[in-house]
Amino acid sequence: MSLVVVGSVAYDAVETPHGKVDRMLGGACTYIALSASYFTKISIVGVVGDDFASEDVDLLSSRGIDLEGLERVPGKTFFWRGVYSNDMNDRETLQTDLNVFEHFQPKLPASYKKQPYLFLGNIQPGLQKDVRDQMTGARLVGGDTMNLWIEITRDQLAETLKGWDFLLINDGEARMLAKENNLRKAAAKILEMGPKILVVKRGEYGAILFTPTYHFIAPGYLLQDVFDPTGAGDCFAGGFMGYLASRGVDIADTAYNRRELFRATIYGSVMGSFCCEKFGVERFRSLTRPEIDARFQEFKDFTDF
Amino acid sequence: MSLVVVGSVAYDAVETPHGKVDRMLGGACTYIALSASYFTKISIVGVVGDDFASEDVDLLSSRGIDLEGLERVPGKTFFWRGVYSNDMNDRETLQTDLNVFEHFQPKLPASYKKQPYLFLGNIQPGLQKDVRDQMTGARLVGGDTMNLWIEITRDQLAETLKGWDFLLINDGEARMLAKENNLRKAAAKILEMGPKILVVKRGEYGAILFTPTYHFIAPGYLLQDVFDPTGAGDCFAGGFMGYLASRGVDIADTAYNRRELFRATIYGSVMGSFCCEKFGVERFRSLTRPEIDARFQEFKDFTDF
Repeated sequence: MSLVVVGSVAYDAVETPHGKVDRMLGGACTYIALSASYFTKISIVGVVGDDFASEDVDLLSSRGIDLEGLERVPGKTFFWRGVYSNDMNDRETLQTDLNVFEHFQPKLPASYKKQPYLFLGNIQPGLQKDVRDQMTGARLVGGDTMNLWIEITRDQLAETLKGWDFLLINDGEARMLAKENNLRKAAAKILEMGPKILVVKRGEYGAILFTPTYHFIAPGYLLQDVFDPTGAGDCFAGGFMGYLASRGVDIADTAYNRRELFRATIYGSVMGSFCCEKFGVERFRSLTRPEIDARFQEFKDFTDF
Repeated sequence: MSLVVVGSVAYDAVETPHGKVDRMLGGACTYIALSASYFTKISIVGVVGDDFASEDVDLLSSRGIDLEGLERVPGKTFFWRGVYSNDMNDRETLQTDLNVFEHFQPKLPASYKKQPYLFLGNIQPGLQKDVRDQMTGARLVGGDTMNLWIEITRDQLAETLKGWDFLLINDGEARMLAKENNLRKAAAKILEMGPKILVVKRGEYGAILFTPTYHFIAPGYLLQDVFDPTGAGDCFAGGFMGYLASRGVDIADTAYNRRELFRATIYGSVMGSFCCEKFGVERFRSLTRPEIDARFQEFKDFTDF
């Protein structure tokens, strides 16, 4: 069933030990949508400037992504430049030009409002709440946030989270949000804030899905070469949410859906791993669903005892 | 089948965010032996001073550990003092008094030499090789090492590793030994140095078992409270080797033994997790085999999809 994705569409400049790209398609919404498009029909909500290239529109269209909600306004597209450390576990932001993204007000086309699945990429929590409130019939809503919003809009974020079925953040953000260093205790605190499910991304170590009554640990895939980790966490989100949407899952009953939630977490790890195999979104030009399912099977082989 | 464990027996002083202990039983051999004793019969080789307390002898004996190879000499037992960071991911060594351990020459009692399983704790690689060469009938030999020996005795260590079936080290040591940052490539290089199996410990993230044809990823257990991580890696080794010994496994055919190797890796993670629940070796005063098997089942529940 179809999934609405809201978030940033950007151009990135990235340097890793494997090379350097001065301008390539990026942004959380882009990665989430491309990743999820292997599982279900995607519609995106975002904003770009008049410099947004037709070849980038074509890439998104080639994956069947509905671009009616991708607003184009005068000015430049959001631009980010960063450089990764030698082991690629750290990155430094060298430049952030918000450009047209600075005043982004998500506008939902009428055709989007009845769609059953919604993923809110990392934008200001008040904007996330506005979008969620317009999707009155959604059967499954989740999203991401970041340290900035946890710091400066904690109360607003708490209000926003009350309307979500799941929250998907990294381990550092989970500890910051819960004000608790132990991950298991932090998860328990966050699950009292509204979401029925918390998914904690751990970078190369994979991810953990928490519910009030059980948890599931997915490892990261051991790549021979990590070319560029940019977007891997967003591709995880796309695989996780895309799989759930493709299976028609809602999570009113997390016990009933346990197995589907576990598999969604593995598909998240699978999609995050593919993302790192080439620079930016390049891997999605050639990636096929059979490759995805073959890697899913690999995860079974190296975790099943 | 019975297992010989060689390594340090020590007294430790440890401070963690949960408390402080000025003197408690420690040492790699101690932790490995206590952990493995839940799976099979253990004989240890080590040295202590005349300050070694009878109550500590009693604890080892209570687990059925054969102490014939535990030499007692005039002087003080090896002493180590350390303090952990707030998140317990780092620790600082404040004091290391080798004492009687400085001139440790492992002496194998005659009754040990015919035993089928041998685990060589982290001691000087030349000493490890001497012991291994005396155990001519061993069906499975493995051990640990550390950054110091990789740095100052690399060639000697390489000779030693040729006689081992498996090497069990942490991820930083694996990268250093292979001179390769990517873990999968590092593992491939190390497997060309002699051992048929490499087990890489990743602290709170669990461990990975590598063979030339497959690998297996075991997560770490999510504890609510980590009181003291001292010895957790050694308890992992004890669980891994103890389980294999209990099953009579040799690894001439790693394909045939695949499932047993996977389960041994999980038992390693299980034993490492119990170790952290109390200070030092305290948890082993009350731990029971049914508790161990219940936690093994928990690992199944939170990894099986």
